[in-house]
Formats: sequence, structure tokens, C-alpha cells
Amino acid sequence: MHYELYYWTGIQGRGEFVRLALEDAGADYTDMARVHGDAVMDPFLAGTAEGGRPFAPPFLKAGRQVVAQVAAILDFLGPTLDLVPHAASRRVQAIQLQLTIADLVAEVHDTHHPIAASQYYEDQKSEAIARAASMRGERLPKFLGYFEDMVKDNGGRHPLREHSYVDLSLFQLLAGLDYMFPQRMRALWPRLPLLAALKERVEKRPGVAAYLASERRLAFNANGIFRHYPELDGPE
Amino acid sequence: MHYELYYWTGIQGRGEFVRLALEDAGADYTDMARVHGDAVMDPFLAGTAEGGRPFAPPFLKAGRQVVAQVAAILDFLGPTLDLVPHAASRRVQAIQLQLTIADLVAEVHDTHHPIAASQYYEDQKSEAIARAASMRGERLPKFLGYFEDMVKDNGGRHPLREHSYVDLSLFQLLAGLDYMFPQRMRALWPRLPLLAALKERVEKRPGVAAYLASERRLAFNANGIFRHYPELDGPE
Repeated sequence: MHYELYYWTGIQGRGEFVRLALEDAGADYTDMARVHGDAVMDPFLAGTAEGGRPFAPPFLKAGRQVVAQVAAILDFLGPTLDLVPHAASRRVQAIQLQLTIADLVAEVHDTHHPIAASQYYEDQKSEAIARAASMRGERLPKFLGYFEDMVKDNGGRHPLREHSYVDLSLFQLLAGLDYMFPQRMRALWPRLPLLAALKERVEKRPGVAAYLASERRLAFNANGIFRHYPELDGPE
Repeated sequence: MHYELYYWTGIQGRGEFVRLALEDAGADYTDMARVHGDAVMDPFLAGTAEGGRPFAPPFLKAGRQVVAQVAAILDFLGPTLDLVPHAASRRVQAIQLQLTIADLVAEVHDTHHPIAASQYYEDQKSEAIARAASMRGERLPKFLGYFEDMVKDNGGRHPLREHSYVDLSLFQLLAGLDYMFPQRMRALWPRLPLLAALKERVEKRPGVAAYLASERRLAFNANGIFRHYPELDGPE
């Protein structure tokens, strides 16, 4: 199966969670907007393209089917790419972990855009500074502590007992947080030894390592979800 | 199968999306915290109960399995309760619609708590007023217009072509928005005739109608996701 991935050019964004799964599995895919430009997504968003009307990128086209929403795409790809257990009871565990990652990702985005995604950061900077304090002090320890506990509960290596798309998404989440909150993460890492080891193992997987070393892996930047604004970081 | 639903007492909250599915299908379930108190959830959240460690309520226990996250719970229940098509290609469409509803629900919550969920509304009221303007002016038309389009694309009655848990969640979303933003919704409804008809049809389904008339249906209130603060509403 050849896959078409549709996501904005210029940022890692939410598309990166899907891209990592495709790269880890060595799947055959085309990153459509990078090849044809962002406008290639317009007919889908307007509901005039074959296969469905996604609300927003990222979305994936597989044959005639269009699937949107990161967790839905990963659930769809998981069995074929061998990135999730086949048993229904385990697949649903993977979805719920992915959705908890997605919740934190949404909170991370709103940390630098607490008032309106459509307005400039500079116009909501004081509100962002206030929100970042609660993100660093309350939300990051709660979410990351949860994932650490989940890895511990499942044998110490994975939150799902075996390699899955959840591991890849945790890697991306942790890499993004290291970029966005370097001071805060330096203080949190000693409490997260299992996640630290998981992140290292994922980085060394052949498909992931090759991808990270390629030009296809964009750098984190000030347009994506994870943005490094020094005024939003701090040790506590 | 007897289900145990775990969710905070006193509010509809995210638990309501699961409750509506159980009630619509006439499922056999116990609303555990309402019977035993909120503390009944503690062992699960601490990871000491059988079946898994949810990040947060709502979660559902079915036999020995614990499932958390609304969209994961509904995907899990859907086939058994006949609330989703069985074909994998249609199930994934349902999940992605549900996740788009969940995205709007999260934005709705953050409208009255843009700085920190852990702080009082009164301490972030001016920021909430600013965020509510973008919610009313940009986000509600974008999301609700999308769902209206999806119903139109699929024959005019349902976003998925047949009754599903997505219809029930859209009903809850629209009821909540009517409560939270009565002025804004009065202005938007004329543009959403298919959603208006869908909402009326869902209200009249036997299981839903019986539930809404019962004491089990709590009223919307100022502790839930959908909160009516007059200063956050307006016609535009």
C-alpha cells in the first residue's frame, strides 16, 4: 500500500507523529504538501476530493480512504505497520495512551497561544507567561509522571509492553519538550528514568535514526507546536 | 455485559458523552461514583486497581478491562452497543469525528480557563473574555460549519450515514453550547439547519428522551465544561 500524507510544510507539527510511524516502519509514502505545495490539501478541506472531508491536517490517504486526526490515523495504520498489538483489548489501550499524549500536545500549543491561535504570540505574551507557569509546575509533572508510571506498570520498557506507535509519539513529545522547556526538563528528567531510556531506544531504532539524520526531519522552530521562548521556561 | 462507569459526581462533564451512549443503547451499567462516592476512583488513578491505570475520569470497566478517554471508550463500546458501523473503514471515520468534537470540547473548557484549570475563573476572567471573542467569532463557526457539512455530505441526517455515538456526542455538544453561549448560538443556528434537525431527532430517541427526563441527567452548571458566564457570550 502506498500512503499519501498531507500536512503543512515548514513545521513538524502534528504531522510528525504520523511521519515517525511511517518512517519507523519503512512504509512507502509521499509527503504530499512537501512535493506539491500546501494547496494540494485544499480540495480535501473543501470536501471536493475523493475519500472524505478532514477537519484539518494531518490526514492520510490510503487507497480511496481519507483518515484525519493523529490518533485515528495511528490506529488505522497500527496493525498494517505492525505498530500496535492486534488484539482489540490492546489496541484500545494504545488509543487511550495516544489521546493522553494528544491532550498534552494541545495544552503545550495553548501555552504559547492561550487567547487565540489566530493571533500573534507577541499579542498574548503576558498571558502565555502566566499559563506557562502552570504548565511547568503542574501539568508537565502530572502528565510525564503518568507516562513514567505506565512504563513501570508494563515491565519498564514500553507503556504498552511492546514497541508501538505510542513509543514513537512519546519520543516526539519528549524531544519537543526538551526543545521548548530546556530548563524545566533538566529538572524533571531525574524523576523520569524509564522515559529517558525509552527516548534513547527509540532514537536508535534503524528507521527512526535514518529519518532523524535525513533532510526530511525538519528542526523544531518558532512556528510549530513546540516553541522555545526563553520567557516561558524556568527550572520550576 | 455489566459496565461500570467512573466519573466525577456533580457535573455532566466528559462523562456525559459516555453516559448518553449507555443510556441510548439501554446498556446495563452502574454510575460508580454516584453510588459509592468519588473516592471509588482513587485506586484506579493510583494504579492499584485491576485493569489499568487511567490518566483521568471518565473511564469504563468492562469485565477486567479498564478503558479511559471518551473517544477510546466510545470506540470500545460502539460495536457491542450497535452505535458504530462494524466495518473498520467506517469505525475510523467515527473516531475521527469524535476526536474533532473532543477538540472543540477542550477549547470550550479553556475558554473559561485560558490560564490554568487549577485556578478560579474569577482570577482569569479578563483573559477568558478575550479568548471567548475568538471562540465565538472564529472557532464555533468553523467547527459547527464543518459538522453541518459532514451531515450534508452523508445524506443530510447523520455525519456517518447512520445513527452512531457521534450523533449522541453532537447532541451533547450542541446542548452545551446552547447553554453556554445562548446569544451566539441564536445567531448561528440559522446556518445549521441539518444539525438542528439532528439534535431534535436525538432528543426524541426513546433511550435518550427517558434519560433526559430522569434524575440521572444533571443540569448544566458552573462547575462543568459548558458554563454560562454572560460576559463570555454575545451575538458575534
